[in-house]
Amino acid sequence: MRTDVDYARELDRADPLARFRDEFVIADPDTIYLDGNSLGRLPKQSAARVREVVEQEWGTRLIRGWGEGWFTAPQRIGGKIARLIGARDDEVIVSDSTSVNLFKLAVAALHARRGRTEIVTDNLNFPSDVYVLQGACKIADGKLQMARSEDGISVSTDTLARAINANTALVSLTYTAFKSGYVYDMRAVTQIAHDAGALMLWDLCHSVGAMPLALNECEVDLAVGCTYKYLNGGPGAPAFLYVRKDLQEGANGDSPLQNPIWGWFGQKAQFDFDLNYAPAPGIARFLTGTPTMLSLAPIETSVDLILQAGIERLRAKSVQQTEYLIALWEAWLAPLGVSLNSPRDARCRGSHVSIGHPDAWRINRALIEEMQVIPDFRAPDNIRLGIAPLYTTFAEIHEGMARLRRVLVERVYEKYPATRAEVT
Amino acid sequence: MRTDVDYARELDRADPLARFRDEFVIADPDTIYLDGNSLGRLPKQSAARVREVVEQEWGTRLIRGWGEGWFTAPQRIGGKIARLIGARDDEVIVSDSTSVNLFKLAVAALHARRGRTEIVTDNLNFPSDVYVLQGACKIADGKLQMARSEDGISVSTDTLARAINANTALVSLTYTAFKSGYVYDMRAVTQIAHDAGALMLWDLCHSVGAMPLALNECEVDLAVGCTYKYLNGGPGAPAFLYVRKDLQEGANGDSPLQNPIWGWFGQKAQFDFDLNYAPAPGIARFLTGTPTMLSLAPIETSVDLILQAGIERLRAKSVQQTEYLIALWEAWLAPLGVSLNSPRDARCRGSHVSIGHPDAWRINRALIEEMQVIPDFRAPDNIRLGIAPLYTTFAEIHEGMARLRRVLVERVYEKYPATRAEVT
Repeated sequence: MRTDVDYARELDRADPLARFRDEFVIADPDTIYLDGNSLGRLPKQSAARVREVVEQEWGTRLIRGWGEGWFTAPQRIGGKIARLIGARDDEVIVSDSTSVNLFKLAVAALHARRGRTEIVTDNLNFPSDVYVLQGACKIADGKLQMARSEDGISVSTDTLARAINANTALVSLTYTAFKSGYVYDMRAVTQIAHDAGALMLWDLCHSVGAMPLALNECEVDLAVGCTYKYLNGGPGAPAFLYVRKDLQEGANGDSPLQNPIWGWFGQKAQFDFDLNYAPAPGIARFLTGTPTMLSLAPIETSVDLILQAGIERLRAKSVQQTEYLIALWEAWLAPLGVSLNSPRDARCRGSHVSIGHPDAWRINRALIEEMQVIPDFRAPDNIRLGIAPLYTTFAEIHEGMARLRRVLVERVYEKYPATRAEVT
Repeated sequence: MRTDVDYARELDRADPLARFRDEFVIADPDTIYLDGNSLGRLPKQSAARVREVVEQEWGTRLIRGWGEGWFTAPQRIGGKIARLIGARDDEVIVSDSTSVNLFKLAVAALHARRGRTEIVTDNLNFPSDVYVLQGACKIADGKLQMARSEDGISVSTDTLARAINANTALVSLTYTAFKSGYVYDMRAVTQIAHDAGALMLWDLCHSVGAMPLALNECEVDLAVGCTYKYLNGGPGAPAFLYVRKDLQEGANGDSPLQNPIWGWFGQKAQFDFDLNYAPAPGIARFLTGTPTMLSLAPIETSVDLILQAGIERLRAKSVQQTEYLIALWEAWLAPLGVSLNSPRDARCRGSHVSIGHPDAWRINRALIEEMQVIPDFRAPDNIRLGIAPLYTTFAEIHEGMARLRRVLVERVYEKYPATRAEVT
């Protein structure tokens, strides 16, 4: 592949999604932002939407705002996210954080599969998910089984199959691994869980908005995901959860999945103020407290942008861009001792690429502090390079990789401490 | 008491907090807003703060925002709320919703008091709290005991004492009752819980920001509360929770209170990404997921305003205003068949006043639809009139009550349906 900058510019000119970059606030065009997989950029329409919610709706309509669109926002925005993940619009709601949503569904699954005591996950899962599952097991007398990746990059379907058995209540995995970007075979793994009589839950945090997902088609039972990465919902924007329609109220004589955190937004006839909890019909029963409207509202404008761009086109561009980035790695960085810590095959790779180097911590510092390149570091030795196809350009990838090469060739990183002090 | 409008104006002129009204967006001065106990008005500084978080911090700093004040916001803002509730700054954090926080603490209490199986509450508690407690009991093999108010307005300390016994793990009450505005004797009830070996949790939703609270002085163990009522934090702004210092890590050989919803923001050394959950030191262990920054940030400017005004002065004005409102009720509304459904004694009354009428539902509709008065309705026959001493004027109270009298005298309400259709 050509490594000259003209080629990057050619690719940008040919990009059918190029116009979407103008939909975002790009305060400093010389900063190469490769962390949209951690916090997506600010869409201009979302900035306007937040102003509207604060200054018009809260400021002038006050409590009346609840009857004028706020109450229905968790379902309405959930319905839009559903279109991105291959689900029905009455199967998804926006609420709480990913971790709280995962807690709800993991506890629900352990209770629904009484007699079975195990949750299966793997060590590529995001640590917060693992903590939540450990806590859910503690509270619901379960046990967490952890399948192990052999190479730290991927986990084979066979390895997972060996961990799943007749005592498995739930299999809970992150569809695109947060560190390596490895993407599982959703259909095959879900099938293995089902064959063993277990429920299947996918965490879509690092997937939604960057690739098409087919939850219904793969017969997935449960899912959670965040909205602040490729969905560009804003820092800490509330998360979503998915429960397949037939599981919401326990059809076919199954015991229903019950949200363990009962609250008034999950209550049938919320304003009757009855003192006995009775779950609302459908997906709403998985709500709990009052939605955080200022953080919730801009998710809608941000998801609308993704829907306009088209998730198939976004995936096509994402694959083209990660392939381009990997080609530059191969030409420029591999000879300097940088490893590729992501799958080489685009079919099982998400929209970020991890590279490895023994000095990754301080290389990452040097990139941020003096190169105006913003990736992120993941212990022990990974630098994650995130591609957000809605606004990342080929020229940015070229320039970001060129600056990274310079940090290595000129040993810019050596002036930084070799190991990380506490970050917070 | 004088009922003429000149008297109201005199009281406003003498109000030492009068200038704080200018700190709020008052879009339509002719609308009498008496629902600040449900959703507080928008402080101008909070509107500016949200713009700053969105357009400057998210828009230009992107992921770097986390290291520039976002990570520490739950503790920093919690520390400010602590000053309003008589707690130490390392005893309060802002996170999740009131209901999720109550779930965390109720389950923690049931587990910490192993061998004891009961949670005691009463039927004046907010329904969402009761649902959460019912759900917590279900998951942690507990049983909910409900003390009952005899008059629907208050619950005597004796009635509560009779419900509390050697099997009580937790007493959980809402300090200012959501419907009647009744305020408990915090010290006495907490003492009764402690004498029985139980933990005491107060829900401060309808109290915080309207009256001084003395959690440490009353030796309160646990508390939760919302930020969108008298704290003016914005629709659905995240809630806070308080855990007394000595209970956070289980000093004195007690078993510690353990947050059941484990997540990365409650993890020690969060960015080590260790796969085994180990709770962070202190109050941070009660955090779970990523904080909703757009909804969290304006709480800080709003709480700063309350701190400037001074909580003692706010309480003094609140008492003066609810007394004034009740005097107008006595002169104008009692003769028209309107009852007072709040305590007559200001010492056991919060900052809202409930009045009752068989046609309360449609009187409330008429007030909102054609009188530009905004109170709220609580089944079966209550209209709540909320006083927010930071911005409510005596003239507003006078005018609001005059319009309410007109609705009754002219039977304006009769054109509205007598019973409520489903509200959402």
